[in-house]
Amino acid sequence: MPKDHFLYKILNPDSIAVFGANNNLLTTMGSMQLRNIITGGFKGEIYPIHPKLTQVQGYKAYQNILDVPETPDLAFLILPPRVIPEVLKECGEKGIKRLIITSGGFREIGEDGKQLSQEVNQIAETYDMRFVGPNCLGIYNGWYDPEVKDSYFNTMWIYETPERGNISIVSQSGTIACHVFWHCQDWGVKIGKSLSIGNELNIDILDYLEYFRQDPQTQVIGIYLEEIKRGRKFVELAKEITPEKPIVAIYAGGTEAAERSIKSHTGAIGGNQKIYDAVFKETGIISTTSMTDFLYYLRTLSFAQNDKIYLNGDKVGIITDSGGSGSMMTKTAEQLGLKVPRFSKELQSEIQKKIPYTASALNPIDVTFDTDFINLLKSFPKILMESGEVDAIIVYGVFDFDDVLKTMEESGMKINDEMKQISDMIQRAVFKPIKRLMKKYSLPVFYVGPMPYRFEWYRKFISHDIPIFSLWDAPSKCLKILYDYSQHRNKFKTFKNNSV
Amino acid sequence: MPKDHFLYKILNPDSIAVFGANNNLLTTMGSMQLRNIITGGFKGEIYPIHPKLTQVQGYKAYQNILDVPETPDLAFLILPPRVIPEVLKECGEKGIKRLIITSGGFREIGEDGKQLSQEVNQIAETYDMRFVGPNCLGIYNGWYDPEVKDSYFNTMWIYETPERGNISIVSQSGTIACHVFWHCQDWGVKIGKSLSIGNELNIDILDYLEYFRQDPQTQVIGIYLEEIKRGRKFVELAKEITPEKPIVAIYAGGTEAAERSIKSHTGAIGGNQKIYDAVFKETGIISTTSMTDFLYYLRTLSFAQNDKIYLNGDKVGIITDSGGSGSMMTKTAEQLGLKVPRFSKELQSEIQKKIPYTASALNPIDVTFDTDFINLLKSFPKILMESGEVDAIIVYGVFDFDDVLKTMEESGMKINDEMKQISDMIQRAVFKPIKRLMKKYSLPVFYVGPMPYRFEWYRKFISHDIPIFSLWDAPSKCLKILYDYSQHRNKFKTFKNNSV
Repeated sequence: MPKDHFLYKILNPDSIAVFGANNNLLTTMGSMQLRNIITGGFKGEIYPIHPKLTQVQGYKAYQNILDVPETPDLAFLILPPRVIPEVLKECGEKGIKRLIITSGGFREIGEDGKQLSQEVNQIAETYDMRFVGPNCLGIYNGWYDPEVKDSYFNTMWIYETPERGNISIVSQSGTIACHVFWHCQDWGVKIGKSLSIGNELNIDILDYLEYFRQDPQTQVIGIYLEEIKRGRKFVELAKEITPEKPIVAIYAGGTEAAERSIKSHTGAIGGNQKIYDAVFKETGIISTTSMTDFLYYLRTLSFAQNDKIYLNGDKVGIITDSGGSGSMMTKTAEQLGLKVPRFSKELQSEIQKKIPYTASALNPIDVTFDTDFINLLKSFPKILMESGEVDAIIVYGVFDFDDVLKTMEESGMKINDEMKQISDMIQRAVFKPIKRLMKKYSLPVFYVGPMPYRFEWYRKFISHDIPIFSLWDAPSKCLKILYDYSQHRNKFKTFKNNSV
Repeated sequence: MPKDHFLYKILNPDSIAVFGANNNLLTTMGSMQLRNIITGGFKGEIYPIHPKLTQVQGYKAYQNILDVPETPDLAFLILPPRVIPEVLKECGEKGIKRLIITSGGFREIGEDGKQLSQEVNQIAETYDMRFVGPNCLGIYNGWYDPEVKDSYFNTMWIYETPERGNISIVSQSGTIACHVFWHCQDWGVKIGKSLSIGNELNIDILDYLEYFRQDPQTQVIGIYLEEIKRGRKFVELAKEITPEKPIVAIYAGGTEAAERSIKSHTGAIGGNQKIYDAVFKETGIISTTSMTDFLYYLRTLSFAQNDKIYLNGDKVGIITDSGGSGSMMTKTAEQLGLKVPRFSKELQSEIQKKIPYTASALNPIDVTFDTDFINLLKSFPKILMESGEVDAIIVYGVFDFDDVLKTMEESGMKINDEMKQISDMIQRAVFKPIKRLMKKYSLPVFYVGPMPYRFEWYRKFISHDIPIFSLWDAPSKCLKILYDYSQHRNKFKTFKNNSV
């Protein structure tokens, strides 16, 4: 645990002073942010600082930080930018060493903002303070209190939180750091830490990456970039990190209007797309411009890192009860450079025994309409794993079996007892056994179905940490990313072993 | 209404004979299919044909079609393929002219299947019968009884149905024809008809397209292709259709294993991707290999066709309360060839008056954290529309305002009456007025937010027929597609006008 790193107390403060929150939740962002700090189960003291109020959201409020009875680990400032220097000085006098400055109105607004930035930097230097921001939403730390389920430390205003996991995000945009939490929750993208870092006036992305490098709770890193200030250092550090912990990046600049947009957003000057592409290539960073892909790639790598399940090669086996989705996934896998090899005669005849005669065993295996879901979801993946003919498997045909049953029963038809057991039977047969096999063979199995994530059965897969996809666009792409990362990782492993 | 077309009675039968359904809903597909026919509110007589049962799902069953007291408009067959010829002959003797043959086991299984296909074709010719399939799921017709809400005629086994709309799908895969219905329902992809056409032994995709061309209920067409049998005719017909009704296509073949997959799926021999790309280009068909894009493109064109809202040019205005998503959408719009022009000085100063001084009015307009949602969602789009400086608008920042309020209230905070009105106020200010403006200026406004479609507020946009996007990947792509289609349409409009 990187307890000695200066970021540690920002992510895990024992006490916090909050400037700029009141009791009116909807009109001030600071009030919503304090609300989230409280709701997450903050363990220590909370000191709201307010010029007029004596109580803020149930906590005793103080007029001035100097009145607070102890020196808080962290000060959280969401105030008009013009008062920041004064408050900062008072925090310095109080002995506070760590801060989050949420306020906007710095370099992103032009000359005035730049002067203010300089002033703020000088004050921080004088008092030996480190701060996140300004112009950010602050931090989410799902590991703040690992003993307590659903607890977290969240200074952002979005109230939804993802499940705790091994993914850490560092973002030059607050939106990418927290607006995505609803989708993370639905799709099972398990986030441990998510940091909105704003203008990086005092702490820059290199510092956060260095922290993640040391942090055992972080096994996958997501970054959203509008600029990189220390380019050479960034390349060096990223090169060190990626063989152990994959990095997925979005770069938002690189086109004319996008540059205009990011300049007014964080004041950054992005840079040519080609430079960023070269950096990503050299460092082994996986990049995308799609939010959906970003979340799916993080999730894919999160599953892989959790259980050390990587691809040993590029051969994909596809099992489906639908010809159309099977064909589409086959095509995209091939277009991305993966192989979908025709199975050996032996393997074909083994499968052929278990499927209708109208079905196909070539690869894809298309079982057509067949209600033997155990075959589809477990037996065939197992046979493929044991065959040694594939390095990864995609299975199409996950429905919410309880919803199917319920709907049929509501039609007034009799459902016999055996059928009512089907859901339990599938769960027992699939989840734990498949997970064991995946680990044994280091061979990922991706499950796919046509229903949205809101359905209960998709939640079941997620809760068992088994990759499940709603619709069939993402699986091939994610396998390709995982294959590339497996290769990247191997290259360094081999190199390391040879040089020892 | 193409009442004289031979497909009309297949889509709108007054009476139907169903072969292969019983009372065991979960183990036979035919039973689930009959269940859906009943559930949809079939208006006429249903005659189950079963060798043993006297009652099937509440309907009197007949041992033989010849025993049925009238000649049904349509026979629906889901039977083992070997019995198909005999049953087909009996249907012929009964005088039935229209059939759907769901059964697989034809050319897709090889030589035996090919012989069977020939036999079936000869019988159909003898009795002057036309049939959908074989090896298909049949049809969904949401317009079967337009007077009755949520009624439909659905022979497919998937029980979810989309909202009725102006999109019609014709698919060589049953999955693409119906597994997508859950997402259609969630995303507001409003489908009128969806046809799973299988091996096209008797009726091929050209016939269905010809029907859609004539059908006033169809304004957008989606096709899933594994092959085109009558290539030249296809090109001719598609060229006629696209200036009036856009076509979005998925072609699933074109790679080695994909060809293997489709051969075992429908027995088709696909063909080189380049040929298909050339066909799509020549005919103005919009193509994709992504299911997500397919549904989004259909939805985009559906909105456009409904209210005749097309793009008059390629200039996009972006309004956001989040810099990150704004930058990402700006970048993807530019990468796709659209323009995100810097606003004129006049327009900038008009906007600047209404936003915080830390915000930006350049394009994107980034209002930063601002709780004046009326500005964001209505006033700014209106100003941009009136300015004449843009041809389309993307607005980021749709939350479920009721969910936000509820969550805040549950935190124990007081929410005053004015705040409680906010949701109603936004609804009144945005939905109808924005729709009117869109029509007035023929200028689409796409709304975007970070929450999944399951949230109520996203349903509200959908029910008002206003494009709403969950996450910010699709809007730029959809605008590009709509721009291209608007151009395509104009080209033909101009040509037509000039030649008259």
